[in-house]
Amino acid sequence: MEKQIKISDYIKTGSLPTGKLNKITDVKGVRVGHSTIKNAENYTGVTVILPSENNIYTNKLEAAAYVLNGFGKSTGLVQIEELGLLEAPIALTNTLNVGKVLDGMLDYVIDNLASDDVFCSINIPVLECNDSLINNIRKRAVETKHVYEAIENACENFEEGDVGAGTGTKCHGFKGGIGSASRIVELDGKEYTVGILVQTNHGHCEDLRIDGKKVGLKLKERIDELNYAEKGSVIVIMATDIPMSNRQIKRVLKRVDIGLIRNGSYTSHGSGEVFLGFSTANVHTSDSKAFFTTTYVKDDFLNIVFKAIGEATEEAVLNAMLNAHEAKTIQGKTCHSLRDYFDLILEEFKE
Amino acid sequence: MEKQIKISDYIKTGSLPTGKLNKITDVKGVRVGHSTIKNAENYTGVTVILPSENNIYTNKLEAAAYVLNGFGKSTGLVQIEELGLLEAPIALTNTLNVGKVLDGMLDYVIDNLASDDVFCSINIPVLECNDSLINNIRKRAVETKHVYEAIENACENFEEGDVGAGTGTKCHGFKGGIGSASRIVELDGKEYTVGILVQTNHGHCEDLRIDGKKVGLKLKERIDELNYAEKGSVIVIMATDIPMSNRQIKRVLKRVDIGLIRNGSYTSHGSGEVFLGFSTANVHTSDSKAFFTTTYVKDDFLNIVFKAIGEATEEAVLNAMLNAHEAKTIQGKTCHSLRDYFDLILEEFKE
Amino acid sequence: MEKQIKISDYIKTGSLPTGKLNKITDVKGVRVGHSTIKNAENYTGVTVILPSENNIYTNKLEAAAYVLNGFGKSTGLVQIEELGLLEAPIALTNTLNVGKVLDGMLDYVIDNLASDDVFCSINIPVLECNDSLINNIRKRAVETKHVYEAIENACENFEEGDVGAGTGTKCHGFKGGIGSASRIVELDGKEYTVGILVQTNHGHCEDLRIDGKKVGLKLKERIDELNYAEKGSVIVIMATDIPMSNRQIKRVLKRVDIGLIRNGSYTSHGSGEVFLGFSTANVHTSDSKAFFTTTYVKDDFLNIVFKAIGEATEEAVLNAMLNAHEAKTIQGKTCHSLRDYFDLILEEFKE
Amino acid sequence: MEKQIKISDYIKTGSLPTGKLNKITDVKGVRVGHSTIKNAENYTGVTVILPSENNIYTNKLEAAAYVLNGFGKSTGLVQIEELGLLEAPIALTNTLNVGKVLDGMLDYVIDNLASDDVFCSINIPVLECNDSLINNIRKRAVETKHVYEAIENACENFEEGDVGAGTGTKCHGFKGGIGSASRIVELDGKEYTVGILVQTNHGHCEDLRIDGKKVGLKLKERIDELNYAEKGSVIVIMATDIPMSNRQIKRVLKRVDIGLIRNGSYTSHGSGEVFLGFSTANVHTSDSKAFFTTTYVKDDFLNIVFKAIGEATEEAVLNAMLNAHEAKTIQGKTCHSLRDYFDLILEEFKE
Repeated sequence: MEKQIKISDYIKTGSLPTGKLNKITDVKGVRVGHSTIKNAENYTGVTVILPSENNIYTNKLEAAAYVLNGFGKSTGLVQIEELGLLEAPIALTNTLNVGKVLDGMLDYVIDNLASDDVFCSINIPVLECNDSLINNIRKRAVETKHVYEAIENACENFEEGDVGAGTGTKCHGFKGGIGSASRIVELDGKEYTVGILVQTNHGHCEDLRIDGKKVGLKLKERIDELNYAEKGSVIVIMATDIPMSNRQIKRVLKRVDIGLIRNGSYTSHGSGEVFLGFSTANVHTSDSKAFFTTTYVKDDFLNIVFKAIGEATEEAVLNAMLNAHEAKTIQGKTCHSLRDYFDLILEEFKE
Repeated sequence: MEKQIKISDYIKTGSLPTGKLNKITDVKGVRVGHSTIKNAENYTGVTVILPSENNIYTNKLEAAAYVLNGFGKSTGLVQIEELGLLEAPIALTNTLNVGKVLDGMLDYVIDNLASDDVFCSINIPVLECNDSLINNIRKRAVETKHVYEAIENACENFEEGDVGAGTGTKCHGFKGGIGSASRIVELDGKEYTVGILVQTNHGHCEDLRIDGKKVGLKLKERIDELNYAEKGSVIVIMATDIPMSNRQIKRVLKRVDIGLIRNGSYTSHGSGEVFLGFSTANVHTSDSKAFFTTTYVKDDFLNIVFKAIGEATEEAVLNAMLNAHEAKTIQGKTCHSLRDYFDLILEEFKE
Repeated sequence: MEKQIKISDYIKTGSLPTGKLNKITDVKGVRVGHSTIKNAENYTGVTVILPSENNIYTNKLEAAAYVLNGFGKSTGLVQIEELGLLEAPIALTNTLNVGKVLDGMLDYVIDNLASDDVFCSINIPVLECNDSLINNIRKRAVETKHVYEAIENACENFEEGDVGAGTGTKCHGFKGGIGSASRIVELDGKEYTVGILVQTNHGHCEDLRIDGKKVGLKLKERIDELNYAEKGSVIVIMATDIPMSNRQIKRVLKRVDIGLIRNGSYTSHGSGEVFLGFSTANVHTSDSKAFFTTTYVKDDFLNIVFKAIGEATEEAVLNAMLNAHEAKTIQGKTCHSLRDYFDLILEEFKE
Repeated sequence: MEKQIKISDYIKTGSLPTGKLNKITDVKGVRVGHSTIKNAENYTGVTVILPSENNIYTNKLEAAAYVLNGFGKSTGLVQIEELGLLEAPIALTNTLNVGKVLDGMLDYVIDNLASDDVFCSINIPVLECNDSLINNIRKRAVETKHVYEAIENACENFEEGDVGAGTGTKCHGFKGGIGSASRIVELDGKEYTVGILVQTNHGHCEDLRIDGKKVGLKLKERIDELNYAEKGSVIVIMATDIPMSNRQIKRVLKRVDIGLIRNGSYTSHGSGEVFLGFSTANVHTSDSKAFFTTTYVKDDFLNIVFKAIGEATEEAVLNAMLNAHEAKTIQGKTCHSLRDYFDLILEEFKE
């Protein structure tokens, strides 16, 4: 695996410390796996987030979703809104593959999580970006075997960039991809982690900002920018070990926007901006007892979590871009990699 | 106090047992008080629900609101939606008195709940019905003194019918008012209470049903029905001692409708249908600790609570009507009391 | 095709006139088709609603969804909430077949509605009920070919009962299915149609009411009721030719509940109650102009539409039951048909 | 009136042209008036936005609200969400004065907009910030006479800074206030205006950014920053003459955040962030006809409006700060004016 770039190793955009890997997997138990499809016709894939080491179907986690701009085809959000629970791994893929990936995930659930005879229902979140600029999306290249492969590949130190569901995406005029970051927050003297994973497919080159600097405008003068029609999206997954209720997770997700806007996004009409978050601290199991006892953070203490999600999202988007490689579009044009312009960017930050 | 009629003493519409008083105050700690204004010009008032015996401002309760039809001017719902907490007593009044009652409640809060110097903010729910058919609403007759009077009158065995905020309301072509009911549910072998208070101002005579029987159509033949323009509303307050999260309380409130529809409502365009609920079991205090531990019912056990809120609402609406007395409208017409036709109704239920 | 029973031919539960066929297809342009799978292992299927005779992808219709109880796995609702548009046919199927049917619908879209090279995205609503009581749901028996078959079968005078997506469903302790009804409303002297299609899988026998009569309790004494675990759901599709905005359609959908509650439902915890509606009067096409002019009904005139949706839903549920036939459950028990008890029911309504 | 500073005259933060006055009143028909209370005890006031020159009660405007963070006590949002209409002028004041201002607005409505006998209901939006840092908020100093005064003062070229409802507010560690800005967008070759008015009471000094530059960090080194407890809020009012549906206005309001975040906000827990918008192009009157015809922009053309609201909000916040003057807090400390540091800021922008 090529050296992965983390923007925070070069430019400090926020104030909170990063986790060990500076990835969503810094939240204990969370693993991420990709299946990447790169061939003559297709440039796409699937990414799976395994939320915990336990059987998530029988050990559900408190969760919430927030739809900032609903120009998207995600599944599974309705039930999470009603019950506040995540009961399956999360899959990311391209827009037209949602059906196939949903069905592939179901195979996995039946084979692994719910093999008993009484199983008849599970709510699986499949989120998506439209990678049709680079990928022949109508082929629906992601099959059940790719879903399994992604799950088998799941690990803590997963790759970022043009892999998995980020293989064919773009971002701010450059090649996009999967990015991740994490931040450590302290509550009552104990450290907790907020982890972010993004599938970036949004934004325009001229709007790109890094830590306030309008690098997009400068880069546009130097490169032959990809002038694509506006068909973006950005999916953001948040994991944390802070005990939070689904109402609180939703409040946190409403601040994902901070990171996206700091990088220059304005949440354009065609950009499906869908955010999903869960807490590994609040496990819901089923038994005959009518009541359960649980612990939550108080809302008065959420400010540091709001800062953390803003900073982690801001970095994750840039990590996605900096680890993605140049690609050809369906039309034969070049989709540049921001990585190839990283030196130029760093110059901007020299005093 | 005239004998109060409880419809369930005559007609059993549901299957769950009622609480001791069959009122919202069967939930321990809840008290209700009225201030009734009946004079030449005004026929209106205010009703206050005190949610607990503690200082509610410093001992906030888990709460939620659900707006079925937002043709209404209630205050306080925005913050309850965000934070899931009730931090003040609840007031009911007429549409144009919301400002004055809100300000009067604030006087009470400053005098009694938050007299310290640092107090600067509180979220007070004031809900309302439009009683302009019977009351000269433009006078805004409810003053701060009436708010205080209602609070001072607060007790467990409060009056129902044309009192307080129900003084000038109508319901299904008859005189409406304040009604209440409660139901007992068993969870893990222990009894809990679901209490309902309604301010009824909705519905048409011909639609009125009692336990499935179309009594409204029959009554319409016998009486000179009040044919008022459609300007209704119904406010429903739910209290319970079942430990519930604000997400769960909202789920329960979405079933208030069951009771209203069983009585024949179809939630007409101009009818502001606003429901507010709280659990006395989940008290939130403020201190320096970042976390709190709490107990909730599991969603799998909510069905009996859904039944309870349907049954209690169904009864509370009828209790409001059966305890309200004939009144004159602003136009000088008669707004009949369903109480005067109760014998006729009971005949329908004889085998 | 066996004689289809319409409850309104026997019992008049409401006041509004029915459309010609008393089906959702009374709304001009709407067609419905089924593919029914009945074999040793599977008892399930798919039902497709074609919203107009035009290419719905290029002639989008104003639409809205309302989730009364989000215990469900429907797709397509997020984008309808954001943009207020329906751009694909609607499919109904079983819970675990959502992925396959979504993918099959996509095949149809690419083959028929969007064959051009630039197509890369469409929002397809697939709604579902859990038919695992009667159907071996884990087999995911509904394939792309069944989706095509349902579309090819689409017609105005479609069958009701245990067909298509209703093949394996239950309802109020009896066999459920697909039901439909329509109501005519007059606005400014012109007739408009409100049409309803339901996939019924909800409710308990003892709660069943018909026009206020507690027939469920009586039937329970006579039959060996199917005592199934509570895993219901009810999907309701509304079509109308009244020009309505998506905000207004949502207001109308919030009254679907009226029909369900009149039949005795209390919207139980496990019952995914998801409603989707569209107006054929408001067609949205894409061109280079920034503005479009459109006509809507005024909210002040919606009351009759609210009544219509209540009455049509109430009837559609009963039509689904009365046209569904006895079936065997996976456990080998009998799921009775209400049709076989129709005489008993009619006796209740004799004067 | 002292020279008003417009940040865009010095620093160009966006790309769209400003309107003539660069205020919300560039939208034809919109006027704004203040009543400012500055005395020994109180430092507060009320600001009223008159949405059109017509009687707004009988000529309602299409409107929407969006609550980003519902830690606030605004009135009037429930009905706007349901009906999508604005039917009264909008008032801004302090948190504890909402009741009094609501009642004062009602006096104005009865005296001026709805003097006929049948008037009985109106939905008045009153939005608020908590100015208790500088103002003795418990006095509730804003009376009906101040409401009338604000309305009488309403004009196009209204003052910005520490006036009206902005008299006692703070912002990013400095004195806050009322700010405004506008942007011109072109649709189908015609110019339209997006106007913004803000009541700023949010943010921290160290977070303040202007056009990407972290001026807050630098200013903090130079001044004795006001270290207040986090009790902020920001109210944003948007007016436009672009024909938009309430669904579309809500989509636009979801992008207000862009401007706030560009200035460094992270939407902290205690900051009530409530946005209200209306279009003067869509007038709703009441008559006996069931239908009305109207024109809307297409969603595909909203991107430029999204950019406009981001840019106008970003500027309006800075204008509020740059036109507000130093004040004393209740505790006797100094709340600095950013105006006094404007030269320092401008130096940052010199090449």
